[in-house]
Amino acid sequence: MSQPHLLTPRGFRASGVHAGIKSRQSPDVGLLVCESRAAAAAAFTTNKVCAAPVAIGRKHIRSGRLRGVVMNSGNANACTGRQGELDAIRMCRLAANIAACEPGEFLPSSTGIIGHLLPMEKVERGIVEAGQYLGSSLEHANLFSDAILTTDLKRKTAAAQFKVGRETVTLAGVCKGSGMIGPRMAVPHATMLAYLTTDALVSPALLRKLMRDAVENSFNSVTVDDHTSTNDTAAILASGLSGAKIDSPRSVKMFTAALNEVCQSLAYQIAADGEGATKVIAISVLRARSESDARLIARAIANSPLVKCAMHGNDPNWGRIVSAGGLTAAAFVPEKTTLKLQGTVVFAKGRPLVFDAAAVSKSLAAQEVQVVLDCGLGKGSARCWTCDLSREYIAINADYHT
Amino acid sequence: MSQPHLLTPRGFRASGVHAGIKSRQSPDVGLLVCESRAAAAAAFTTNKVCAAPVAIGRKHIRSGRLRGVVMNSGNANACTGRQGELDAIRMCRLAANIAACEPGEFLPSSTGIIGHLLPMEKVERGIVEAGQYLGSSLEHANLFSDAILTTDLKRKTAAAQFKVGRETVTLAGVCKGSGMIGPRMAVPHATMLAYLTTDALVSPALLRKLMRDAVENSFNSVTVDDHTSTNDTAAILASGLSGAKIDSPRSVKMFTAALNEVCQSLAYQIAADGEGATKVIAISVLRARSESDARLIARAIANSPLVKCAMHGNDPNWGRIVSAGGLTAAAFVPEKTTLKLQGTVVFAKGRPLVFDAAAVSKSLAAQEVQVVLDCGLGKGSARCWTCDLSREYIAINADYHT
Repeated sequence: MSQPHLLTPRGFRASGVHAGIKSRQSPDVGLLVCESRAAAAAAFTTNKVCAAPVAIGRKHIRSGRLRGVVMNSGNANACTGRQGELDAIRMCRLAANIAACEPGEFLPSSTGIIGHLLPMEKVERGIVEAGQYLGSSLEHANLFSDAILTTDLKRKTAAAQFKVGRETVTLAGVCKGSGMIGPRMAVPHATMLAYLTTDALVSPALLRKLMRDAVENSFNSVTVDDHTSTNDTAAILASGLSGAKIDSPRSVKMFTAALNEVCQSLAYQIAADGEGATKVIAISVLRARSESDARLIARAIANSPLVKCAMHGNDPNWGRIVSAGGLTAAAFVPEKTTLKLQGTVVFAKGRPLVFDAAAVSKSLAAQEVQVVLDCGLGKGSARCWTCDLSREYIAINADYHT
Repeated sequence: MSQPHLLTPRGFRASGVHAGIKSRQSPDVGLLVCESRAAAAAAFTTNKVCAAPVAIGRKHIRSGRLRGVVMNSGNANACTGRQGELDAIRMCRLAANIAACEPGEFLPSSTGIIGHLLPMEKVERGIVEAGQYLGSSLEHANLFSDAILTTDLKRKTAAAQFKVGRETVTLAGVCKGSGMIGPRMAVPHATMLAYLTTDALVSPALLRKLMRDAVENSFNSVTVDDHTSTNDTAAILASGLSGAKIDSPRSVKMFTAALNEVCQSLAYQIAADGEGATKVIAISVLRARSESDARLIARAIANSPLVKCAMHGNDPNWGRIVSAGGLTAAAFVPEKTTLKLQGTVVFAKGRPLVFDAAAVSKSLAAQEVQVVLDCGLGKGSARCWTCDLSREYIAINADYHT
């Protein structure tokens, strides 16, 4: 059997076309359409400067039902005032014409430069064209997946399947994100964008609750630059067309596992493709006083440029990690703390340990570095993913000109 | 009249010697001694991982009186357990022998690599030697100023004078700090170290209060990497030997002005000499809902690597600044917000403005970039200083090996 993808769940079609909004020759307008009124939930940025499509999307998601997503890359439609909102609504109207539904049944999204009005002539032509090429093949999924990318180097996809009775349920997703990644999304909250599809039959209320938890442990646990974007959006659409009801404890458990697996895979791919990244830093904080304490500590470590540079240089400079752990409002007692770098204990109970620095340095030259900090205080744990900080990051963000 | 310096206030002598703790040939042990029991106040790091000299220093400052400061660079004596504390106490004991006082009358400080025991043989020899070369000349002040430096490229000094009646009062200071700079100090709170001297006659209680306010608006308002160090310390010693009492409203006002001037000058010098810095970014947030809101917003802008890279590249990408302003818990309403870059309004009332991007870009190629964000919400204001983010920062922090 072939690998499941975004359009494997029954009821979904998509397309991606190049409308000329991005300078490079790749798709920049994407359209995802569900043939049924899908149960839907979405998380949006908590940045008080939120883009026009986020403001409109928040209204459209209230009913818990969507017919699809209409989006563009290359321009964030953020800080664009009333005209920006009118443009986002116009995008929904064009998509609704294609799907023969109401504009309020579409979620609009944009990603790209802040502070420029959308080139609506291009956007409109793009949406109309996208409507003509809708389909359910892997190629269609790939065109949509590419349409959402900006500085990303790689396409980001994930999928999971499980059975409810005899029915196979598919849950799949795509996302983008490389810079301005420090999502703090709330349900109804990079620029990261993530769109998930499933053919499970699930109520909007349950979908909303499960999405909130999944976002917290995936997208909200990844950071590249801790700069919460104006456009962050993660949405899931459940067509229900498998007929498999998610309502029993067992089906909810399987759905939750699939949702978490897909969201975490996508979040990990964002960290791995972070601007200038050469490796992923996977931070686990164990036995913190509380889960929220664990999150604070993990994020402080993930956001320290000193830690990110040390990891880039394969330098087992653990003092930077321990000191980042202590700088938040979370409880932290060095005398109770143990730190492992790639499995080697380098700090325990307030005291430095003798270790083979050359060997640990060698172990840091990997595609994934495991940092495990045991706080010895309680039962709170959290994971967070980030990437190293390289000269390439500076090149991408300083040499580039708006 | 010659420029006042750290040892211009009456009653102070200092020295700095090379004891071999730092690899490069520059002073790494410093001693500052006051001939009177100076009124003293100090601020220390709020990092829960605090260095041994900070733990000891907190105890020693309780009496509000100090005879001096004994310090080393090249090794932070942090994460060193009980032995680290014994070593910090030993440093005080040796200094006390020189000044003929109690060990508890000395403030110990260390700065450098975390997680290594102090090379006490070198440190002890250094302190004894420093005791033999104490003096009050500019040269002595410079040797002490150099002894506290680590990755700093420049010596950092400031001084102010004012008159109380016929008496001239001098208030002077030195500091260090280039990386691991995100001080959040509390009076009894980088690695930044700052030592101030004055010959004003001021009570410990008043000194403590004035120091707390001055630290908040200076050292706690500078960030290079937002990584609050284990060793941050700012201390002031007032010898009282000018005989000029700081107790009337007018004298307190003048003393406060001098204290703020010296602290802010030193803090600015830290930003200007931040690791890899080519320019200072001076951020002013005006009319926020409250002062604490203004601080949150200013610090979020100062800590965004996207903003710091844009400024490095002279890119007037103001969307990064406005979006950083909105990502904190502080009240922020784009429609009420105005942003000026080097005096040019680029964003006002939720809408982008047409401006000469080439001219603004040219204006950003300066030693200091002025970012002024008017929130239009209230009366809170704050200033914050940071530096740009360059390839040189990566070189310093990734290529360097522990």
